[in-house]
Amino acid sequence: MSTDRFEPTPRTKVRRLPHLAVHDRATIHAILDEGTFCHTGIVVDGQPYVLPMAYARRDDTILLHGSAASRVVNALAAGTPACVTVTIVDGIVLARAAFNHTMNYRSVMAFGIATPIEDAARRREALEVLVEHQVPGRTRDARGPDDREMKATTVLEFPLTEVSAKMRSGPPRDDPGDVALPIWAGVIPVRAQFLAPEPAPDLPGPISPPSYVTGYRRGRK
Amino acid sequence: MSTDRFEPTPRTKVRRLPHLAVHDRATIHAILDEGTFCHTGIVVDGQPYVLPMAYARRDDTILLHGSAASRVVNALAAGTPACVTVTIVDGIVLARAAFNHTMNYRSVMAFGIATPIEDAARRREALEVLVEHQVPGRTRDARGPDDREMKATTVLEFPLTEVSAKMRSGPPRDDPGDVALPIWAGVIPVRAQFLAPEPAPDLPGPISPPSYVTGYRRGRK
Repeated sequence: MSTDRFEPTPRTKVRRLPHLAVHDRATIHAILDEGTFCHTGIVVDGQPYVLPMAYARRDDTILLHGSAASRVVNALAAGTPACVTVTIVDGIVLARAAFNHTMNYRSVMAFGIATPIEDAARRREALEVLVEHQVPGRTRDARGPDDREMKATTVLEFPLTEVSAKMRSGPPRDDPGDVALPIWAGVIPVRAQFLAPEPAPDLPGPISPPSYVTGYRRGRK
Repeated sequence: MSTDRFEPTPRTKVRRLPHLAVHDRATIHAILDEGTFCHTGIVVDGQPYVLPMAYARRDDTILLHGSAASRVVNALAAGTPACVTVTIVDGIVLARAAFNHTMNYRSVMAFGIATPIEDAARRREALEVLVEHQVPGRTRDARGPDDREMKATTVLEFPLTEVSAKMRSGPPRDDPGDVALPIWAGVIPVRAQFLAPEPAPDLPGPISPPSYVTGYRRGRK
């Protein structure tokens, strides 16, 4: 990684509320590492499509994958311009004024063109990174992909070059004239909660959930 | 509402994993009512942009709003084709095979063109619906928008006509040959957790958080 910052471009320069903009590499990486899924946007015949997808970060790339039969995956593999956005909501912000209600969040938006990973060994390794992003530790246990599964899966590399983040945190910011109003204001913190694991009903016997399942957590929480 | 189902169109017909597709109106409404924010996709000069936004559902429309100075809001108001996607993650699904790992989720995708609400009374009412979507009960207490705030806000109506949902739930589905493997499989349930409210540091005195804050919850959880 050459610098600690992604250089803003005309497309990633944040114009609205620029004080919320972040181009710092470590912050952007941390958001991407905590998120579980992204929303990928592509254009087909002038119509935008926005789809939830799994992803993983590796260095300065986002890895995506999907069925080799998927229209969206094929459009991405063919080099259509894409936007990958990852958003984590941290809180609901209640101000005195309806107008100043907002959310606390961290969001990364990346523009670029994906490239399919053709080499079988690199593709297999990327699939491991994708599983590890969702459940760190899982590749030790899971049955790895066979030839049919490898053939059925397209793996894509999406460059983190034109990328920015936007974040809001902290209490509501009300107009000075509103602060004295007798209205409760503050933040309802939001976080992803991971509940007790539910074993598959067809487990062949008493198999304990591994520690990476019982102790599952993400990011800074 | 004329029927209990949104008629699939060529763009909303789900081709990948069609058994996960839902066009049922009540299910689509329930997902939209539980979600807190959407990802909106538009196209500018052939480049897709995907942005997190607040939204609310009212009947068969999605309400969006934003600063009248925002490029994206202005593009939406000008009638650029858009895609609004709302995704709720319900679980991380660990199968025996890496290939069969997936997520449990509910996602709604709507295509269409937004229309700005020009009439002041309708705009004010839509803004209330937007606040109520985030925090039901809040409009009773919050200071309503003044003329300056109304002028600074664009409110958009996005039709729910070309819309579909995709959902996955339940345990992992492994290949028969994998089920006997001595590998734990199952689901880590995920849900949004709302923590104890954090009062704004500048509250003018001891104001108790209202019950819609202390008892905040969403959807079926």
